[in-house]
Amino acid sequence: MLIRDVRITPVAFRDPPLLNAIGVHEPLVLRCIVRLVLDDGVVGLGECAGQRPQLDRLAAVRPHLIGMSVFDTNGIERTIGTVLRAGTPPGGTPDPMGARNAFSVIETACMDAQGRLTGRSVSELLGGAVRATVPFSAYLFYKWAEHPPLDGRPAIPDEWGAALDPAGVVDQAKAMIEEYGFRSIKLKGGVFPPDEEIAAVRALRAAFPDHPLRIDPNCAWTVETARRVAAELDGVLEYLEDPVPGIAGMARVAATAPMPLATNMCVVAPEHLPPAIAQDAVQVLLTDHHYWGGLRRTGELARLCATFGIGVSMHSNSHLGVSLAAMTHVAAATPELTYACDTHYPWNRRDDVVRPGVLRFADGGVPVPEGPGLGVELDDEVLDRLHRAYLAARREARDDTGYMRRFDPAFDPSPARW
Amino acid sequence: MLIRDVRITPVAFRDPPLLNAIGVHEPLVLRCIVRLVLDDGVVGLGECAGQRPQLDRLAAVRPHLIGMSVFDTNGIERTIGTVLRAGTPPGGTPDPMGARNAFSVIETACMDAQGRLTGRSVSELLGGAVRATVPFSAYLFYKWAEHPPLDGRPAIPDEWGAALDPAGVVDQAKAMIEEYGFRSIKLKGGVFPPDEEIAAVRALRAAFPDHPLRIDPNCAWTVETARRVAAELDGVLEYLEDPVPGIAGMARVAATAPMPLATNMCVVAPEHLPPAIAQDAVQVLLTDHHYWGGLRRTGELARLCATFGIGVSMHSNSHLGVSLAAMTHVAAATPELTYACDTHYPWNRRDDVVRPGVLRFADGGVPVPEGPGLGVELDDEVLDRLHRAYLAARREARDDTGYMRRFDPAFDPSPARW
Ligand SMILES: [Mg+2]
Ligand SMILES: [Mg+2]
Repeated sequence: MLIRDVRITPVAFRDPPLLNAIGVHEPLVLRCIVRLVLDDGVVGLGECAGQRPQLDRLAAVRPHLIGMSVFDTNGIERTIGTVLRAGTPPGGTPDPMGARNAFSVIETACMDAQGRLTGRSVSELLGGAVRATVPFSAYLFYKWAEHPPLDGRPAIPDEWGAALDPAGVVDQAKAMIEEYGFRSIKLKGGVFPPDEEIAAVRALRAAFPDHPLRIDPNCAWTVETARRVAAELDGVLEYLEDPVPGIAGMARVAATAPMPLATNMCVVAPEHLPPAIAQDAVQVLLTDHHYWGGLRRTGELARLCATFGIGVSMHSNSHLGVSLAAMTHVAAATPELTYACDTHYPWNRRDDVVRPGVLRFADGGVPVPEGPGLGVELDDEVLDRLHRAYLAARREARDDTGYMRRFDPAFDPSPARW
Repeated sequence: MLIRDVRITPVAFRDPPLLNAIGVHEPLVLRCIVRLVLDDGVVGLGECAGQRPQLDRLAAVRPHLIGMSVFDTNGIERTIGTVLRAGTPPGGTPDPMGARNAFSVIETACMDAQGRLTGRSVSELLGGAVRATVPFSAYLFYKWAEHPPLDGRPAIPDEWGAALDPAGVVDQAKAMIEEYGFRSIKLKGGVFPPDEEIAAVRALRAAFPDHPLRIDPNCAWTVETARRVAAELDGVLEYLEDPVPGIAGMARVAATAPMPLATNMCVVAPEHLPPAIAQDAVQVLLTDHHYWGGLRRTGELARLCATFGIGVSMHSNSHLGVSLAAMTHVAAATPELTYACDTHYPWNRRDDVVRPGVLRFADGGVPVPEGPGLGVELDDEVLDRLHRAYLAARREARDDTGYMRRFDPAFDPSPARW
């Protein structure tokens, strides 16, 4: 049960040209697989973002984790906080959010290891699954048909084709729901002027009369615009996600919006909860174990939300199967979950590092993996291939805006620009 | 890991004549030991109040727990809620607090069983102990020298003697600290007019210049009195516990009190947290796993408190060693604990059902029991003796006021009477 090694493996995998408020997804996503190797040979798995700051944090804490027990997550949290605070440069600002990101992936790997050591699934260690299958939503994106040719690189098409207007969005929804069976739909907005996105939502409603719908413009709108869109989509949206920046702005929208407001942008750390609650800025919180402090903290956060009458959904970034398994376990063990979870998995599944056979979608949901821990195993060949892709890419950060500007130098990513 | 039997054993044990705002402790405390017997022979232990409503709840849920997994505490919580809601008489009001009381002891026994099954201590299952020893406070009571003769029963003296004035309180503190090494002191107040209790606190301060002090009059004061006492004891109390009834009243006191206000009376369920936080009524919460939903929920509650800048201490009722072990494990695994915990254990230790050798006090703290689960075992002979005492007592409820009125028919237990 003692940590003998922490293997930190950054990976890169293919991503379609998905559009959002700050640009377009690059052809490769950076991600990181963490393996805790224990003294008795058990290996615990975690997955997190692969940007340089996160890799640096993990490298900094790595030697301090050697010899610690995977059951001592409280001690590990404290150690990580201490090490990273000590590593703050003179005059620099400590980064509790960064420390929480680092702890989150280690905690997930500890829970996986605990499950393997005790023969229990992670959802059992979290109090037991209250649902056998975790519902996810279809996560639609406006997108180009292909990554355009660039710097001598040819175009990179994908299986999904373009979606740049209401008809394209509906076609994408049909294809995704045909394959996965999703029973609710989220559209990533903030890409086109709001009236075009309203039209896309209305087209989705016409094509899918019974699917709950959401739109997430990632703070691209002003308070006035958000209030207008909310009024126009009264009765159409189950929730409106991050229409405007900031807790105060969200509170102003919430004061008139007929539907709940959701966020994964203005409430991303414990210190954001008191002001958001005091101002009734948010009625649905999108949890995310990757930055809320791991799996147990995510369940606790859901309980806190329920205490304050806040609904619970789940946020997603581009991810692989280790994260999908972790998201599924924690969502399964969270009675307070009130909405289908988000997942990018359909966009990135071709490169999954997880051995096939465990993770699958049925009627829009993922059955909770059985077997001890997270219930998934790595495919070493794929991991090696994706790690080599990471090394070859020579990239250290995600830059949706910079990539977009290669094609549209005047692109404006400003929040509240509509 | 499946529950084969739930053994519910009410017990009664000796209690000194401890005085409080609503009367005096009767000669016997009612309590209940719960044993979850698993299909593989493992037994998980829990301890809770032994009043009739709690015994009835446990009897009602008992058959529904048979066959459930001790890892499925989410399912058990839901089952208990469903069974007890269904048992609400027509026209009656569902009792979520009662359901939480019932779940709490079952959850504790499940965690003990999980620990025994996996070879881990309960504090490890809660994320790991952040302290090897949990600090407790000396819990002083005004008290009579003996239970007076009654109905032909002779007087029942005890080892502690009387404490009815400042000198008696200081003597009691000296004896208790001499034996247990406590490093902070709580006085149960609400017994004498406030100025007498202020004098007792001042006498404690003079005798123990470095011990943090608390007083808990259990809502016996008015807002005006509480504000005056708080001002007079500025710099003397580390916190003032439940001076007045209700969240609104506490908020009015908190607005002028120079020290934090603590409670285990106006915030005892999740639904009390939003108004208490909105009104800044409480600065320290006394958690209690017996009614907050068990050990995991108690840790979660502490995190919620920390999120809102609320300090964390721990409440106690008269209890035996199973509860002391559970309190110690959860407090050990709660980084957010900011104050020494309360315990009645010194008043009742002579009748402990736990086999000696594990639970001990050192410098006012209890070292976290090692070994799997809670780390304690029952002494079957003592359990049998206390159960027979319960049967012989023919009592079903605690009645401090009724007992006091046998000696002082005019006794007034009204809140806010001073
Ligand atoms: Mg979002
Ligand atoms: Mg109290």
